[in-house]
Amino acid sequence: MRQVVVAGVGMHKCGRYPEKPATDLALEAALNALDDAGIPWNAMEVAYASHVAQGVSVGEAICEKLGMTGIPIINVENACASGSTAIREAFYAIANGVYDVAIVIGVEKMNRGVLGGAGEEGSLERELGLNVMPARYALKANKHMHAYSTTVEQMAKVSVKNHKNGCLNPYAHYQKVFTVEEVLASKMICDPITLLQCCPTSDGAAAAVLCAAKIVRRYNSKPKVFIAGSALKTEKYKDDADLTARTAKAAYEMAAMEPGDIDFAELHDAFTIGEILHCESLGFCPPGEGGVLVDTGRTEIGGDIPVNPSGGLQSRGHPLGMTGVAQLCEVVWQLRGAAAKRQVESAKVGLTHTQGAGGVCSVHIFKR
Amino acid sequence: MRQVVVAGVGMHKCGRYPEKPATDLALEAALNALDDAGIPWNAMEVAYASHVAQGVSVGEAICEKLGMTGIPIINVENACASGSTAIREAFYAIANGVYDVAIVIGVEKMNRGVLGGAGEEGSLERELGLNVMPARYALKANKHMHAYSTTVEQMAKVSVKNHKNGCLNPYAHYQKVFTVEEVLASKMICDPITLLQCCPTSDGAAAAVLCAAKIVRRYNSKPKVFIAGSALKTEKYKDDADLTARTAKAAYEMAAMEPGDIDFAELHDAFTIGEILHCESLGFCPPGEGGVLVDTGRTEIGGDIPVNPSGGLQSRGHPLGMTGVAQLCEVVWQLRGAAAKRQVESAKVGLTHTQGAGGVCSVHIFKR
Repeated sequence: MRQVVVAGVGMHKCGRYPEKPATDLALEAALNALDDAGIPWNAMEVAYASHVAQGVSVGEAICEKLGMTGIPIINVENACASGSTAIREAFYAIANGVYDVAIVIGVEKMNRGVLGGAGEEGSLERELGLNVMPARYALKANKHMHAYSTTVEQMAKVSVKNHKNGCLNPYAHYQKVFTVEEVLASKMICDPITLLQCCPTSDGAAAAVLCAAKIVRRYNSKPKVFIAGSALKTEKYKDDADLTARTAKAAYEMAAMEPGDIDFAELHDAFTIGEILHCESLGFCPPGEGGVLVDTGRTEIGGDIPVNPSGGLQSRGHPLGMTGVAQLCEVVWQLRGAAAKRQVESAKVGLTHTQGAGGVCSVHIFKR
Repeated sequence: MRQVVVAGVGMHKCGRYPEKPATDLALEAALNALDDAGIPWNAMEVAYASHVAQGVSVGEAICEKLGMTGIPIINVENACASGSTAIREAFYAIANGVYDVAIVIGVEKMNRGVLGGAGEEGSLERELGLNVMPARYALKANKHMHAYSTTVEQMAKVSVKNHKNGCLNPYAHYQKVFTVEEVLASKMICDPITLLQCCPTSDGAAAAVLCAAKIVRRYNSKPKVFIAGSALKTEKYKDDADLTARTAKAAYEMAAMEPGDIDFAELHDAFTIGEILHCESLGFCPPGEGGVLVDTGRTEIGGDIPVNPSGGLQSRGHPLGMTGVAQLCEVVWQLRGAAAKRQVESAKVGLTHTQGAGGVCSVHIFKR
C-alpha cells in the first residue's frame, strides 16, 4: 500500500443554521479544505460524501456547487461513524492506487430533539426504549458506577473539560465554560446523564483532501500528516465484546503502535460516560479507571494524554455525517502545530474514534 | 489489479411488502447469494449495503440478522445508481487486495407515489417541476421525437418488450403482457409518457458475493463471471454532455471492449425513452436510431443485442438501492446459461447501466 497524507482540511463552524442548506455548509468546508491543501477542485479524482439523513445524492449536489467535473461521487453512511467510514474508503482507494487525490466531505443538519438510534419497528430495542441514545449510555453509566465506583462528578468533569476546550476552538458550537455543579444541576435526561453531558444537536460540515504522499509536495509544503492506521468494525457479540477495544487493536497493529504512542485523541464523547469508557478501551488507562483518568487531569490539554482538545462532540457538536471528518481536521491542525490556544505540545501522533448506532466503530491513527 | 469474480447472486422477488421490513427482504437475498456462492457468511470480510431512503445503519441491521461477525459494513447511496456504486466499491477493494471476499446487498422499500429526484428547496429545478422524474424524461422524449422522428409507438414497444421478458422472470414484480395500444392508452403521466412506460414502485432486494478469482474455486465450480470493466461518473456539463456515453467509454476501455462485444445489456429503463437513449449512448446503434432499434426487434431476447432480458426496471421493478445489484444477478444467470426461458443464446459478455438523480451514472461489463 502507498502512503497517504491529509493534504488539507476545512470546516464550517458548528451551530444552528435553519436558513442555510446542508450543501452550503458543505461547500464552505470543502472550499476551505481545498484552499488549505493548495490543490484545485478540478484535480480531485473522486469525492466521498458522508451524511446520515440529508436526502438523496447530497454528494452530487455539493459537487455541483463546486462545479461538476465528472468524477465518481460516492455517498457513504454509517450512523455516527459516517465521516470516518468515508475517510477510510478514500484512504484505501488512494493507498491502493485507484486514485491519487480524493476529497471527503462530511455534513449534517440535525433534526431537533432526542437522538434516535437503531432498532426496527417492533424490535425489543424499541420496546425497551433503547433505540434512544441517552438511554443506552445511561445503562452503561450505571453499570460503570456500580462496577468501578465511578462518580457522577467524574462524568461531569468530562463535560467541563470539553466545554473548556471548545472555548478555544472557533469552530465549536458551544463556547461557554461550565462548572461541575452546573453540569450536574442541568436537566436530568436519563439518570445519571444530565443535559450538559449530552452532545448538542448541531449543524456543521468538515472536509479533508487526501492525497498520495508521493505527489503532495507538488501542491504544498505543509507538515505532512500521514494515515498510519485505519480500522472499521461492527459489534460481534452484543453483550460482552468491547467493540472499541477490538477496533483499536486493529488500528494499532496496522500503525505498529501502542496506546502509549498516542499523543492525543479525538474520541466519541456523545455522552460523558462514552469518553470514560472509550479511554479505557483505547488503552489510555486500565479498565475501570476512566473516571479517575479524567479526575486527575491527565486528559486535559496540558495532561499526558489530552482527549478531545477540539471540545469534542460535547462542545464542538455532533453533526452526524460531519463528526469523523471534523475529528480529522482537529488532528491535522494539532499535528501541524496550528491549533493555537488549544495546541497539544509536541503532538506527533493523534487518534480519532467514532462509534455509531447499529454497532459500528472506527479508529484511525495519524502521524506527523 | 487482481481479477474479481461474482461467486454468487441472490434475490428477493420484487413486489409490495408492506408487512415485511427491508432487512427481511435483504436477508432473503443475502442468504440466496451466499447459498449460490457456496461461501459461508462468516467468510465475508466486508459488507456493502446500498439503499436510498431506508434509515440509518441498515447494512448493520441486515448483517445482525445474518449474525454479526465484526466485519466492516459500509452503507452506500447514489440514488438509482446506489447498487452499482456498492458493487464498484467492493470490486475495487477486492481487485486491490484489501479483501478477498465481499457481499453486496441492495435493498429498498419504496414510498408510494411519483418518484422525486434531486434539486434543493428553492432551486430552479424544483421551481420548474423538474425534480419529478417523469417530467425530466418527458422533456427528453419530446426532444428525441422532434430531432429524430421517434414515435410514441416505438417508445411503447420498449414497455411491451420488457413486460414480455418480465413474464419469464420469477423475480419480476409485474408478470403481465401488454400491447402497444394498451401501453399508449394507459393514464398519461407526463406527455408523452404514459403510466405503463414508467417503472412501478416496487420493494425488493438483491445480493451478490464478490471474490478474488484465485480463491473462488475453493468454494464452487460454477462458471466464472468476471468483472471486466467498471466506471462511475457524474454529469460534467448539464446540457451537452452525454453522461452515459462518457461512462460507457471508460468501462469499455477498462474491459478493452467495444459496443459490438456486448451480447446483452441490463440498462436503466426507468422510463421507456430512457432505454432508447441509453441504447444509443452505449453504442448499440447510432445516435437517433434508438427508436428504430426497438422497432426492428433487435433488442428482443432473440435479437442481436437483447436489452433488459430480466424485464428491466419497467417490469422487474426499480427498488432504488436494489436495482444495480438486481441487474448483476440477471447478468450472472445469463452468463451461466441459467436464465431458463429468457436465456440469451451463447451470452458471453453482459453490460449493466444505471443512472440516477444528481447526475450519476454507472456502467459495468461482465464476462464469462
